[in-house]
Amino acid sequence: MLTMPSLLLRTERLHGNNPAILEGSGDLTWHAWMGRIAQAAGFLRRTLGLEPGERIGILARNSVRQAELTYAAYWAGIVPVPVNFRLAPPEIAEVLEDAGCKVLAIDPHFAPLLDRAPLDAWRTRALLLAPHAETGLASCYDELRNAASPAPAHEPSEDDDAILLYTGGTTGRGKGVRITHRNIVANALQMAHIMGVRPWDSYLHVSPMFHSTDLKATCVTMHGGSHAYLPEFSPAAVLEAIEEHRITIGSLVPTMIIRMLQDPAFGRHDVSSLRIISYGTSPMPAEWIRRTMGAFPSVAMQQVYGLTETSPVLAILDEHDHARALAGREDLLRAGGRPLAGVDVRIIDDAGKAVAPGESGEILVRGPQVANGYHNRPRETREAFKDGWFHTGDVGRLDAEGYLFVLDRKKDMVITGGENVYTSEVEAAIYQHPGVHEVAVIGVPDKRFGEALCAVVVAAPGHSLTPAEIIAHCRGRIGGYKIPRRVSFVDALPKSAMGKILKQELRRSNTVLKSTEEKTA
Amino acid sequence: MLTMPSLLLRTERLHGNNPAILEGSGDLTWHAWMGRIAQAAGFLRRTLGLEPGERIGILARNSVRQAELTYAAYWAGIVPVPVNFRLAPPEIAEVLEDAGCKVLAIDPHFAPLLDRAPLDAWRTRALLLAPHAETGLASCYDELRNAASPAPAHEPSEDDDAILLYTGGTTGRGKGVRITHRNIVANALQMAHIMGVRPWDSYLHVSPMFHSTDLKATCVTMHGGSHAYLPEFSPAAVLEAIEEHRITIGSLVPTMIIRMLQDPAFGRHDVSSLRIISYGTSPMPAEWIRRTMGAFPSVAMQQVYGLTETSPVLAILDEHDHARALAGREDLLRAGGRPLAGVDVRIIDDAGKAVAPGESGEILVRGPQVANGYHNRPRETREAFKDGWFHTGDVGRLDAEGYLFVLDRKKDMVITGGENVYTSEVEAAIYQHPGVHEVAVIGVPDKRFGEALCAVVVAAPGHSLTPAEIIAHCRGRIGGYKIPRRVSFVDALPKSAMGKILKQELRRSNTVLKSTEEKTA
Repeated sequence: MLTMPSLLLRTERLHGNNPAILEGSGDLTWHAWMGRIAQAAGFLRRTLGLEPGERIGILARNSVRQAELTYAAYWAGIVPVPVNFRLAPPEIAEVLEDAGCKVLAIDPHFAPLLDRAPLDAWRTRALLLAPHAETGLASCYDELRNAASPAPAHEPSEDDDAILLYTGGTTGRGKGVRITHRNIVANALQMAHIMGVRPWDSYLHVSPMFHSTDLKATCVTMHGGSHAYLPEFSPAAVLEAIEEHRITIGSLVPTMIIRMLQDPAFGRHDVSSLRIISYGTSPMPAEWIRRTMGAFPSVAMQQVYGLTETSPVLAILDEHDHARALAGREDLLRAGGRPLAGVDVRIIDDAGKAVAPGESGEILVRGPQVANGYHNRPRETREAFKDGWFHTGDVGRLDAEGYLFVLDRKKDMVITGGENVYTSEVEAAIYQHPGVHEVAVIGVPDKRFGEALCAVVVAAPGHSLTPAEIIAHCRGRIGGYKIPRRVSFVDALPKSAMGKILKQELRRSNTVLKSTEEKTA
Repeated sequence: MLTMPSLLLRTERLHGNNPAILEGSGDLTWHAWMGRIAQAAGFLRRTLGLEPGERIGILARNSVRQAELTYAAYWAGIVPVPVNFRLAPPEIAEVLEDAGCKVLAIDPHFAPLLDRAPLDAWRTRALLLAPHAETGLASCYDELRNAASPAPAHEPSEDDDAILLYTGGTTGRGKGVRITHRNIVANALQMAHIMGVRPWDSYLHVSPMFHSTDLKATCVTMHGGSHAYLPEFSPAAVLEAIEEHRITIGSLVPTMIIRMLQDPAFGRHDVSSLRIISYGTSPMPAEWIRRTMGAFPSVAMQQVYGLTETSPVLAILDEHDHARALAGREDLLRAGGRPLAGVDVRIIDDAGKAVAPGESGEILVRGPQVANGYHNRPRETREAFKDGWFHTGDVGRLDAEGYLFVLDRKKDMVITGGENVYTSEVEAAIYQHPGVHEVAVIGVPDKRFGEALCAVVVAAPGHSLTPAEIIAHCRGRIGGYKIPRRVSFVDALPKSAMGKILKQELRRSNTVLKSTEEKTA
């Protein structure tokens, strides 16, 4: 069956003596780890008294304990709700309330948040994930789990909720996406082939586990591979982990990769085990793709496109697509990729009609990994999940070969002087300038054009740029109306936990607007 | 979606310029072939007037036309019913009637069967698959398809019947297995990973396409690979096809492999393209595994276990299992393999209770590839598909590492002197004798024991054996009550189209029984 208990049962049986967890203190086999997971499930069911279908919040940096608790919840039929730890305490409380969590498992690192309203109300329902003397909280996961007797596997139906993941991230009111057992396992079946996963693979969890991208690792569990968890990203920590654990699959976002390559520690570590870099949330400029491929011997670059609602992967730009791109089709690097087997894509116009091939519009998808809707949000569910299709809210186009170009989040499209401009197109042009390290294009209020395009640029080290240079660079590369009217320079762009540039924050930022120099394009 | 039209649409879009069909007369790309398939679908819907859900019989040796008609049926929502051409005309007519076929597409090779009752009644509903002057039948597929305008894809639900395949083969009254779109595509997702299928793979269809094993090739279509079709097996034809079409994946049964290796043509062909031999229906003795691996450079041996009701693959003994077997665990070669991701296996006793681990009993399975039951057989469907589990009717055991040993078809188990004997165990022991080419063990009526074990042996070329030698060989290898009381020698064993030994025919065969020499074990 396509359920997580079935998947875990099979993995333990087929690969019980394989390492499951790679830790400095000694590896754990699948037999040993599944023993702990079944005990943790017993703890959830009997000690905490949680019933199948009930929810448990998790507020933690990546760790074996978080992974174990998540798998234990799957095993027991409890629905884990990992919460974005970069949210403010009122937002965290809102997610926990919205999800109806009975208990909050919390990393001691975040225990001080329990002193702040309204999260202090969760103090009596909090479970400390690791021992920590100063928190004043008595309950501790390890001891309680060890004291529990193992629970047998719950037998969920394939369509039962497996996990509740909140979208909206650091901005706005989040919605809890109901990801089912079938969703996760179907996407693991699809991704296992893409990654060619084998029992000797090892996966490095760098991106925060509250993000749907972490579900990608399920295909490694499916085939008896192993996992290593990093509590937080730093270039040195990633490089050390790859060397120490002989990591074969790394899931990273472009900014992480770039920071690693720029780090002085790079080159001092043996990274020859790495065979796949799976990256997402944004495309990566060709120059950095080249440098990454040069730096990691025989690594396959795979860009994924997906959303929380798609558990998470919909499309893939695989290593062959990357090779093709570097051989003269650099435009392909701006594609989200091509749909996975089992995924249907449709592009529609504002009237809801399918557009002509190659035309852009809203991306609709369907497939076995498309989630069951939003928790307690019947209206939003009806709007987004219509007639069997999930309406992604992303704008894109599908070319004749099936490459899906995600032009921009619909809301990030700028209408300037009556023309629709997809900011990613403008960014791609500016990225071609050798002095540009990073760029984000946003719309800013403009008396004449309604909105005007503003490029916010981070210069590469050792480069000094002027707005006029950027504007001149754009000429001929993109249509006149797409050339930014304003260019601003900053030291760094605001980013989410996933390394995604937060355009909403840029728009709100007075600093950016104040420093903007206006130029006529 | 997990449907064949969705799969074909994606393959054409992503891999349109890849070869789809490898033919002596020139290859066909996916674009070109999908054009023909859509036309053939138009022909089925408009010219023949078939409605979605209606059935079309196909009686043909393997050919591009049969494949095209099958895909066209999927595309149009029509359900193809490929019929075992080794059945007698009354049996063929029975299948066509049972399935409620509206039309019979027939290979000219089999056209003479239309002169024989009761198949002559199908003459007016017959469509000739290829031109043939002597048949007296006017309708010819190619012309009719070329005259049709292409039909758009039908949009079936994932649970709609995709194909009706009859089990029972050459013995007894067949049952039509309702294989759904989801079944086929889910199994293709599972198998694509096992075979590591890439767009440059090419699959050789040797086993007859009326058998469920042919569905294995769907994972090659899913990833834009190509197909070559052999109308019938001969060692030379297979070797020539591998060389000519640079075949990468061959699906064969053990007897075919053995015949190829023994053929004088072997060694005269370049078979270096072959990277996977997928074999099934019966295990292969270690000695022949060794010879096959020696003869095919860098080939991966993969044994599959499955049934028509499982669309078709349930378990796999992969190349690493084979390596492990040759390194000292030869018993693994007698396993059907380990369950695919998504497959649950349960072993039950006669009372329907789960047996202790390692104990034998009936094999129950569930997973996304388990079919929707039998066509027009509510009682048989209820009996075999119970509480979400398919009851395979096979006897087996599951070891601690997940290896599934298929001991024998339940009905092939012999009860002798009150003891249950799984004949495959006895056969495995006899196969260890260097002078034995093939062996089948059956039960024969016996006054004293109720049934007695009888071994029917084909000696290897140049070997002359006696019953006493075989019996002496068995002593110490297997328990006394498992040693055959009778041993008979024949030149060849009766086999099905799939190369499976037909024990039922052996049991009926007077020749065998007459020539049996009785010995006391």
